[in-house]
Order: sequence, then structure tokens, then C-alpha cells
Amino acid sequence: MEVLKVSSKSNPNSCAGALAGVIRHHGAAELQVVGAGALNQAVKAVAIARGFLASSGLDVVCVPMFADIEIDGQSRTAIRLLVEDRDRRHPATIDVRDSAPAPVAALTDVAALTDVAG
Amino acid sequence: MEVLKVSSKSNPNSCAGALAGVIRHHGAAELQVVGAGALNQAVKAVAIARGFLASSGLDVVCVPMFADIEIDGQSRTAIRLLVEDRDRRHPATIDVRDSAPAPVAALTDVAALTDVAG
Repeated sequence: MEVLKVSSKSNPNSCAGALAGVIRHHGAAELQVVGAGALNQAVKAVAIARGFLASSGLDVVCVPMFADIEIDGQSRTAIRLLVEDRDRRHPATIDVRDSAPAPVAALTDVAALTDVAG
Repeated sequence: MEVLKVSSKSNPNSCAGALAGVIRHHGAAELQVVGAGALNQAVKAVAIARGFLASSGLDVVCVPMFADIEIDGQSRTAIRLLVEDRDRRHPATIDVRDSAPAPVAALTDVAALTDVAG
């Protein structure tokens, strides 16, 4: 499962593009955040990505979970949002699939978002 | 659909109890928040409520959406989290339903949380 780390400085629209791209390719993705500001950007990204993926016939939902992680040797509680189709369908199995390629530029943006301190 | 307003001062455990109670009775609930702090408490509440409701055979997911609301005559963007079973099953239709009563005290707590400014 691909884990995208979102920070409080992440752009929700860019994250949404990246998230939609990962879900189109892998069927699901996880967003990991630490802090209220980062969670805010992540949830906005999910709301925006829902719109992108609705045209592909997906009904995207998210499942929030707590996760213990370590940052600079210190234990922190992160929140992980598992984002996937409600029926766990893979986009490739859906007839109405939008054939647009994944937004590679947006994916590159998020690959740089390794700062999880929100 | 019952809408629970969550603020940045709301206790996630109390909200989770209220949320689980509403979902057990009505099958779904909506959490409405304004601001990153309030959203943080709401998402934590959903993660906790998932644990409460798993024992009732429910797989709770959430669907984030933007909502335009008015506070003190000013237009604000709220986030609404629709919280329901993945398959939109009503708890009453599930055989393994936990027969414990809804947490009435917790419901009363949240009824007082009308402060949505986060």
C-alpha cells in the first residue's frame, strides 16, 4: 500500500491529484499525517479526490486509524487515512473507467512531502 | 440524518460514544466541523467509534464533503463527515448486533456542542 505523507504545508489540490493517481493505479492509498494542520489538508484532499474519481465510477471513502510512529527518535501518534473505493473495487475492473493518465506531476510533488510534522 | 457539531474543545471519546449511539439507532450520522482543530477531534472520534462499532459487526467508513454554512452572518466553509457502515447496513439488520443500549449520557454531551467555531 502506497503511503503519502501530508504536512500542514501540503496543497490539498496537489495532494488530491496525487491521491487520485495512486488510487487509479493501485485501487487504494494511505495518507499519513501528524497534527491538526496536516490532517486538515489531508481530509480536504480526500474530499477533492472524491470528485476526481467519481467520474471513474468510484465511490471513495476513508477509514481513519491511529498509528504509532517515530520522528527524530521521539514517539508520536500519527493518523492514517486509508482511502479506497467503498466496495474495494479496483478502477481497472470498472467499465466506465476514465482513461486519463495519472497526474504524474502531482505525484512528484507529493513524493517530496516527507515532512510529516504538522 | 442527525448532524453532530464538533468543536476543537470537544472530547474525542465523548464524541465517539455519541457517534456510535446515533449510528446504532439510525445507521448513519454526520459530523460537522469548522477549522483544523475541530476536524482533528472529529476524525479521532471516528477512529475510536470504529472500534466501538466493530463489535456490532459494522465496518464504519467516512465520506468527507465541503459545506457552505453561515456563522454570525458570515459565510464559512465547513467540512462534513458522513459516517456510516461501508455497505450502508443498518445495525438492526445485522445478526451479531451488540444489544447494549446507546450511550445516552454521551449523546447529551454532544447535544450541547453547538460551538462550531474551530
